[in-house]
Amino acid sequence: MLENLFASRIDIKTKSRLVGLFPDNNFADNISFGGGCPDEQLFPAKELTAAYQDAVCRQMNHAFQYHDIKGPERLREYLAARAQAKMGISKVTADDVMLTAGGQQGIELVAKLFIGKGDAMAVEAPSYVGALAAFDAYEPTYYQIGMENDGVNIDQFESILKKHPEIKLFYTVPDFHNPTGVTMSLKKRERLVELANKYDFVILEDTPYRDLRYHGQDLPSIKSFDTEGRVIFLSSFSKILTPAFRLGWLVASPEIKEQLTNLKLAEDLEVPYIPSATVDSYIANNDLDQHIEDLKDLYRAKLDTMYRALKQNLPAGTKVSHPEGGFFFWIELDPEIDTTSLLWKQSVPDQHLIYVPSESFYPNRDIKNGMRVNFTGSTIKQINDGCRRLRAVIDSAEISLPELSLAI
Amino acid sequence: MLENLFASRIDIKTKSRLVGLFPDNNFADNISFGGGCPDEQLFPAKELTAAYQDAVCRQMNHAFQYHDIKGPERLREYLAARAQAKMGISKVTADDVMLTAGGQQGIELVAKLFIGKGDAMAVEAPSYVGALAAFDAYEPTYYQIGMENDGVNIDQFESILKKHPEIKLFYTVPDFHNPTGVTMSLKKRERLVELANKYDFVILEDTPYRDLRYHGQDLPSIKSFDTEGRVIFLSSFSKILTPAFRLGWLVASPEIKEQLTNLKLAEDLEVPYIPSATVDSYIANNDLDQHIEDLKDLYRAKLDTMYRALKQNLPAGTKVSHPEGGFFFWIELDPEIDTTSLLWKQSVPDQHLIYVPSESFYPNRDIKNGMRVNFTGSTIKQINDGCRRLRAVIDSAEISLPELSLAI
Repeated sequence: MLENLFASRIDIKTKSRLVGLFPDNNFADNISFGGGCPDEQLFPAKELTAAYQDAVCRQMNHAFQYHDIKGPERLREYLAARAQAKMGISKVTADDVMLTAGGQQGIELVAKLFIGKGDAMAVEAPSYVGALAAFDAYEPTYYQIGMENDGVNIDQFESILKKHPEIKLFYTVPDFHNPTGVTMSLKKRERLVELANKYDFVILEDTPYRDLRYHGQDLPSIKSFDTEGRVIFLSSFSKILTPAFRLGWLVASPEIKEQLTNLKLAEDLEVPYIPSATVDSYIANNDLDQHIEDLKDLYRAKLDTMYRALKQNLPAGTKVSHPEGGFFFWIELDPEIDTTSLLWKQSVPDQHLIYVPSESFYPNRDIKNGMRVNFTGSTIKQINDGCRRLRAVIDSAEISLPELSLAI
Repeated sequence: MLENLFASRIDIKTKSRLVGLFPDNNFADNISFGGGCPDEQLFPAKELTAAYQDAVCRQMNHAFQYHDIKGPERLREYLAARAQAKMGISKVTADDVMLTAGGQQGIELVAKLFIGKGDAMAVEAPSYVGALAAFDAYEPTYYQIGMENDGVNIDQFESILKKHPEIKLFYTVPDFHNPTGVTMSLKKRERLVELANKYDFVILEDTPYRDLRYHGQDLPSIKSFDTEGRVIFLSSFSKILTPAFRLGWLVASPEIKEQLTNLKLAEDLEVPYIPSATVDSYIANNDLDQHIEDLKDLYRAKLDTMYRALKQNLPAGTKVSHPEGGFFFWIELDPEIDTTSLLWKQSVPDQHLIYVPSESFYPNRDIKNGMRVNFTGSTIKQINDGCRRLRAVIDSAEISLPELSLAI
């Protein structure tokens, strides 16, 4: 009876997109291609625990006190240097780096800064479900831009911008896109910044997978082409070190960073000292880039295994992306197949297999025949077994279609 | 030039209330009555470090993985039992308890759930500045209810409710109020729930200081009188254990808790395992209530010291609250004194003393002659010295008033 007191944002989305996304699968032989989890065997637990002790001992009891909104200076200096060396972003200092509670908080703060009810924003379609959930709460009017093998359809985007110059924000995952796995080409990165300058919008460049390239050559970040402070570069330690400390970071122009900092102050007051100082100490005393190379060697084998297994098991003509890095493949099945229904009615109960159905990744939930499958969180054996189960799931869908038609 | 793209919430508040609240005071002999910091000598650093190791060892590498939005079951069971035993809230189970990133996130999520642009809400005047900052972002229309020695002016509140039945949310700190230090009487707690039922609004009962009573008898929580699920009870470990883990908790009706959880999912995805499991392990292996008794013994001495020192040093006729617990005293000076100007022009540069001026605590920043002073973060000697400095600061204000008039 209290629902009448909820803000209008709750009327629009009574359920978050993130609720019920991952079904319980308590079977002993369950396989999950669902979440975006790192392989936990590679977490440097011993080194992180030593780093925790170092972080606490350096400040003694003061470690457990309130701290400030900025977080460790040395860590922000390291990230500024990393942004220059690895992302091609020029003239970044520690003051340009803002630490956030995971990449997710960065997305949420950008939504809060730019989006009011009915404000126009553009997203890749499909797009990262967690970002859509964060944007949903501020009630944007979404414009969906299709994806191609080399990233967002930039011609389509420009024609939408011509019709809707009120678009003020574009959210993109240019490297090993979530959910499709594709990478935006160099030309499209340059052209995107030109469009932002011409049509006066801001780009949120979300790059949690950027460091995890298993094949091919690195590309400069979109931010590296930024001439007017319109690109917010967002990254995270969740995929390359651990998600447990909820530590993300972003690089933005001073006017944007100042407002994001003010909004963060009102959300959670500070960057927690212990997690951020632990990551700082880990980096000072270990070789993060060598750790990333170890991750890449393992994940490369998993990606190659899954690509072969999908090719072997999926029906002829099924579209599958072929990522050069990241965490995910994207599969498009026969347009008549509803992968949400398939997940709950066949995949989980019959095959004990979890994936994420495509509808979650579209603002309007209107594309039903795709799925995102993750390969980093499973073992090589689970990847091969899971792809065989996926074949059985899809076969059962195709067989049951005529019966479903009759039933309707 | 990108400001034209910001959402309207940023136009209203280009500066967060929390920005510049605490001036730098780098003098060797600085004394801060400003923040709301616990005495860090009493943080159980050794026990918390042991608890961290236990939390990590229990899950090994899995500790560093993503976890869920609920947080440790055993911790929520403990908090449910605590809510029943210490807050007088009946029939609370682990499922009714939600963990948040500090109490601050609880306030922010409640704002997000209930407040849209122009929605009416009531706050105590003065009120906790961090809560006002969280509400500001959702652009409420504020109604200010005055404070009395036994809590909010409930008759004034009812007359405002009669004129503005559209008020949908009331935010209160009933125990050792931030910033005034006063405690809401039993009668007012009961009557507040009656008003909420009659005028159809929700109460956010924020209780970070509740466990820290140094004199007098505990009162039941407002939530304990709740008959219609209208009260959200919010608490935190920041003041009784450590603020470093950013761990708060709330008890709410299922329909409210479900929506708050959905909103949290979209903000930061999860309750971080390591901090929450560390607190869980600390509680399982230590006596939190004995730790709180230790805190109370020290803070009682500090409160009594500051009360005596304020009485000795403040000009005759100055109003000072006399709290029975918590972290703060509230001082009201001559109506002609502007404590913000006094802070920056005299208190910091001349006396190296920090306090928080009253204007920060009012939605409209229109009351200038008050100040909040904290006693928990200073030593006994600093409290006595600081109160003598405060006398000098106030004396200088009174002396300079005629000159200021002339200058204008």
